[in-house]
Amino acid sequence: MAKVAVGVDIGGTNLRFGLVDAMGNILARKRMVTDAHQGVEKVMARIKRGIGDLIKKAEGSGHNVVGIGLGMPGIISHAEGIVRFSPNLAGWVDVPLRDAIAEGFGLPVFVENDANAYALGEAWYGAGRGAKSLICITLGTGVGGGIILDGKVWRGADGMAGEVGHITVDPKGPECGCGNRGCLERYSSATAVLEHTVIALAKGKESSLKPLFKKHDGSLTADAVREAAEAGDKLALGVYKDAGKYLGIALADLINLLNIERVVIGGGMAGAWGLFIGPLQAEIDRRAFSIPADRCRIVRGLIDDDAAVIGSAGLALKK
Amino acid sequence: MAKVAVGVDIGGTNLRFGLVDAMGNILARKRMVTDAHQGVEKVMARIKRGIGDLIKKAEGSGHNVVGIGLGMPGIISHAEGIVRFSPNLAGWVDVPLRDAIAEGFGLPVFVENDANAYALGEAWYGAGRGAKSLICITLGTGVGGGIILDGKVWRGADGMAGEVGHITVDPKGPECGCGNRGCLERYSSATAVLEHTVIALAKGKESSLKPLFKKHDGSLTADAVREAAEAGDKLALGVYKDAGKYLGIALADLINLLNIERVVIGGGMAGAWGLFIGPLQAEIDRRAFSIPADRCRIVRGLIDDDAAVIGSAGLALKK
Repeated sequence: MAKVAVGVDIGGTNLRFGLVDAMGNILARKRMVTDAHQGVEKVMARIKRGIGDLIKKAEGSGHNVVGIGLGMPGIISHAEGIVRFSPNLAGWVDVPLRDAIAEGFGLPVFVENDANAYALGEAWYGAGRGAKSLICITLGTGVGGGIILDGKVWRGADGMAGEVGHITVDPKGPECGCGNRGCLERYSSATAVLEHTVIALAKGKESSLKPLFKKHDGSLTADAVREAAEAGDKLALGVYKDAGKYLGIALADLINLLNIERVVIGGGMAGAWGLFIGPLQAEIDRRAFSIPADRCRIVRGLIDDDAAVIGSAGLALKK
Repeated sequence: MAKVAVGVDIGGTNLRFGLVDAMGNILARKRMVTDAHQGVEKVMARIKRGIGDLIKKAEGSGHNVVGIGLGMPGIISHAEGIVRFSPNLAGWVDVPLRDAIAEGFGLPVFVENDANAYALGEAWYGAGRGAKSLICITLGTGVGGGIILDGKVWRGADGMAGEVGHITVDPKGPECGCGNRGCLERYSSATAVLEHTVIALAKGKESSLKPLFKKHDGSLTADAVREAAEAGDKLALGVYKDAGKYLGIALADLINLLNIERVVIGGGMAGAWGLFIGPLQAEIDRRAFSIPADRCRIVRGLIDDDAAVIGSAGLALKK
């Protein structure tokens, strides 16, 4: 019987389930609303239901379910499978997620931080294949990161490693929600792209985005900024150029520090690849040592949206 | 018979040899001038002579020499024991140092980058004991770094990892010899401390260092700046404060990225500890996440000057 595992991406908004085979294909999917405000018990029940449904499907089609993997934002004690704290899921403090899920299904269960799960997904089945050391960066609402060294996730002493989004790229830069200022996240996330555009428009800068800005109805989004940039709008092009520049500054640090083989960039903003990769590479060329810079390939995520589901399942499949 | 190993710290100016026991004590020492300009052959002969002398000493006193370790600046292929390139030793390009030394003595030989050897020395026998993940930073002419994760040196794909001195701490900062600008090394090395002092004095800033500056005879050194700072000179205090501040910015990055247990700071400038540790810690408190920042202890190197000799020998002793 062909081996499969269930991967779950537990987000603040959605729960995403996938039945994943040994080659990293998603054979069946499921999605539910998280409704985190209903509390840990209710969310946990929903997670169990989703997993149960996919296991039933797998068994009905003659597959052998070897385990379950769960990826979740926050501080995760991987070895014990405990969720210490999750910024997007209220009430999830010291929740023994692994044991709670294992009890219901009698299968091996693995719990991982979602950025690490994403990195493992890309490393095992996506744009990171063949690299032994790599860093995966997601550009979305924030900037997430997962570090894989010698084929293993580097989690650090408290499972907190990989906070690429909070590298200081300008010590005098704007304040960040984390308490620092000048964090990468304040320049190279979708949120930052939108914010820098709004600030420039508010100052009266010329742009094709002016009408959207004046409407104040939420139609000015990072995607709208991207479209404007792709159509040649100077202001929008400048914002994406800056996003690439600051990401390049941070990547030069990572290359000089860790001499990794690859950097995989995913997340919603990776769709604007052509708008930021040039300025990004220029900063690396300018700032990193040439041997490790030449070694390191900067590539776009391949499985991206599915990477956390596939990587979580992979924890069970690769065991 | 008690186990010992020979450790060699190959520098651009001096060759330093030590006979090291299993507890990390140096039982006997030797020092020679490198005279790198005389070429690889001559330096190699000198290294062999120094090792031979210490082995003779060890055997004469009833010790069992189990191997030889060599630490050297530059790009080292640790697995093959080859010196790819050394910035401070002209002509050392693709030199098979391990095999050349092994041939002469019939003992296991290990070759390591000197910053990594330093880090291993502190990790095994010094201020890093008990920590599984740590970063060692030396503040001297430049800023060196060695990264130890899960008890092992992280060398990266080309043996180039650990370039802590070339983290960008201010993207618009002064140019660095590496081609980047705003590198940590341009703020927190002894060289930088002296340079920032000279620039301020040249601008006519008030300071007790003015007479030394006017003499133009080389008596204005980083040590002189330290002494002035310790005596309360405002300009000198400010320069050391800035050195601490920028080192703190870089350490906050490292803490957020790698969630290490300890940072060991050594090198000549570590003697000015009290002048920079306050501003350094303040930046970490301001910029790093609290859980990994609380986890990470910032400590001063314990064996420091001897760390590269002891760490190199340790490679043979720990095998």
